[in-house]
Amino acid sequence: MFTPKPIGYVRSPYTSTKAIPKGLGVKHDEEGVLDILPEFEPGLIDIDGFSHLFVIWAFDRSEGFDLFGPSPADNRPHGVFATRSPRRPNPIALTVVELLRRDGPKLHVRGVDMLDGTPILDIKPYMSSIPADKLRRGWLAEAEARKQQP
Amino acid sequence: MFTPKPIGYVRSPYTSTKAIPKGLGVKHDEEGVLDILPEFEPGLIDIDGFSHLFVIWAFDRSEGFDLFGPSPADNRPHGVFATRSPRRPNPIALTVVELLRRDGPKLHVRGVDMLDGTPILDIKPYMSSIPADKLRRGWLAEAEARKQQP
Repeated sequence: MFTPKPIGYVRSPYTSTKAIPKGLGVKHDEEGVLDILPEFEPGLIDIDGFSHLFVIWAFDRSEGFDLFGPSPADNRPHGVFATRSPRRPNPIALTVVELLRRDGPKLHVRGVDMLDGTPILDIKPYMSSIPADKLRRGWLAEAEARKQQP
Repeated sequence: MFTPKPIGYVRSPYTSTKAIPKGLGVKHDEEGVLDILPEFEPGLIDIDGFSHLFVIWAFDRSEGFDLFGPSPADNRPHGVFATRSPRRPNPIALTVVELLRRDGPKLHVRGVDMLDGTPILDIKPYMSSIPADKLRRGWLAEAEARKQQP
């Protein structure tokens, strides 16, 4: 395979996992910076035109994995590939952020849910969406429905 | 960091990169199978309820990277982080697929753009979309506009 290497690091207001909002209906509106290493700055050319980016990053402070376990968004356990749990066979994470502006190798973004200092593995442009009316959201929709019941 | 390991392999109709549709406005409607290793099958519990999945996989037949280069969707070069090029500092790929059905450890999906035998690193549920009217698509939108001009 390959050996993952950081292309940069996240600057985020979160220094502990407890501070990161989790659970049903959570919104991530915090701003942060994707601080790309100077050697990779040419890879950012033309990224400014995209409003949203996929950020692929490493859960570098997570160890081991659980194939089946709890989620902060539900009181019932689920398979790890049906959740965003950090305890995964490959500790790879994915976050969609809004690109606010680029300042050389620094991407100012909204929507960070990473810890400060998190290594970034890749950035990709968000090119298209699945329309909301075509999405089924499985246990997540069920947990939301249960929460709304009196 | 961590050492990536396959959680399974893609079964796809594509055995050569030339066969994979590329370029502007391309649609990936081909069906394939995400063939998850039996040891990871418990991680798939409750995935069936989601209509769409993020598949994170390795460009295992790509070597090296170009920070700035051409894209099949445009005749102008762009920074690698503004494209889906396989020649990236970390050869990690992301594809959104539609989940058609699960047959034990086999996920039958629509929308594969991977080569047959591609190692899968992770699967995550697609939980929400950025509304199309909030997306800006940079050079991609510009290239589409140029193509439509007479």
